[in-house]
Amino acid sequence: MRYKIILAYDGTNFAGFQMQPNQRTVEGVLKRIVNKIAKNPTPEISVYGSGRTDAGVHALGQVVHFDLSIEMSERSMLHALNSQLPLDMQVKKVEIVDETFHARFTTHGKKYQYRMALGQFVDPFKRNYTGHWKFPINIGLIQKAIKDLEGTHDFSSFVASGSTVKDHVRTIYEAKVWEDKKQNEIVFEFYGNGFLYNMVRIMVAVLVEIGSKRRPADDIPRLFEVKDRNQARGTAPASGLYLKEVDY
Amino acid sequence: MRYKIILAYDGTNFAGFQMQPNQRTVEGVLKRIVNKIAKNPTPEISVYGSGRTDAGVHALGQVVHFDLSIEMSERSMLHALNSQLPLDMQVKKVEIVDETFHARFTTHGKKYQYRMALGQFVDPFKRNYTGHWKFPINIGLIQKAIKDLEGTHDFSSFVASGSTVKDHVRTIYEAKVWEDKKQNEIVFEFYGNGFLYNMVRIMVAVLVEIGSKRRPADDIPRLFEVKDRNQARGTAPASGLYLKEVDY
Repeated sequence: MRYKIILAYDGTNFAGFQMQPNQRTVEGVLKRIVNKIAKNPTPEISVYGSGRTDAGVHALGQVVHFDLSIEMSERSMLHALNSQLPLDMQVKKVEIVDETFHARFTTHGKKYQYRMALGQFVDPFKRNYTGHWKFPINIGLIQKAIKDLEGTHDFSSFVASGSTVKDHVRTIYEAKVWEDKKQNEIVFEFYGNGFLYNMVRIMVAVLVEIGSKRRPADDIPRLFEVKDRNQARGTAPASGLYLKEVDY
Repeated sequence: MRYKIILAYDGTNFAGFQMQPNQRTVEGVLKRIVNKIAKNPTPEISVYGSGRTDAGVHALGQVVHFDLSIEMSERSMLHALNSQLPLDMQVKKVEIVDETFHARFTTHGKKYQYRMALGQFVDPFKRNYTGHWKFPINIGLIQKAIKDLEGTHDFSSFVASGSTVKDHVRTIYEAKVWEDKKQNEIVFEFYGNGFLYNMVRIMVAVLVEIGSKRRPADDIPRLFEVKDRNQARGTAPASGLYLKEVDY
């Protein structure tokens, strides 16, 4: 039986999604609990996520699948997982799917949200859950520039140097930004067919520079052309980033 | 010069407000930074809070005062403090006051808020910032019962056994509760002239029992009469409690 789960986690106390020796990771914790529920079979059960998230990055709707030889109902699996997972992880939904489903290889799109808190000082309750920008910012400039990111482009200027992926062409179906006045935050949302290593955080850093007039408003087409990550400069902090949903 | 500051903190990583050896406390951290700003005078400068908060309890508007022999503007003090305090503390406001002001002894009232998350499982992003109640609850029953707490009463049934305070008579000016539907939380607010050790958390636990029909709706007058902490039973978790404001 193949189980698809939708998973939320507070990334603050995880060294990212992907399993690493001697680190607390989302994959590592989940895999241990799934194997425990399956009574520790040999060979071990693997869990497959839609993709990695970095240390400190959050998820509202990460998708993971795994196969179990014993049969459990969706409801029993939801309870078994949530009663054993630590409190900074929560399974939102369990679905039994057929074997053509693969959390990583059959994705159609992913949606990321980035929350940037404004104001002079960091709100103590937001330090792990937003980025922070204390300088004046013109959201109109960002609203115009963000549309340049939509479409199919070579995102070589927007990928962290550590990436080993060769093909940097990705499609962003929709990119938008709005002000959450009540929270005094700027919220960015990107929906695309795939994202490179640190790509969302680099795009946000570029957009914030545009909004605060540290970079020309029409700079994004130029960045696509030069294919030079150094010219995009910053990377917005992990704490503001949320993997919101994954579509299949 | 006497400085009054309004302080917010995320209580998660503090062993409460009050200084204790080998523990990270709000008072301890603040005192160290204030003495550093004043260039470590002898004798040390003390800081005086409006009252303690327990480990894990948050503050949106704790009030603290201290005296400095050097003169700094309110604005400079705000910047000096916020640039040196850790990110889980933030000074919201600095005011120079005269020496009749005392953060603890001249309070008129305090307002506490308690946030109780509903739903079957704990939201990973709320685990440190709310209490959690997974059973059915009738808010109408709580709205009616909470009014019994208003007025001047002997709160002996609502004080933790560790308290050394002898006089348990306190006045609650206003007690109210509402549903935050968007957050799926019940929010309690208590405004009174003073609160005993764990008093808010015990009141919330009693009200939640009333709302879920584990205790008669009219039980609060009886609890005032019996003056027996054991009959109030539970204490709601610290994570949901916020010291919202202190009036003078």
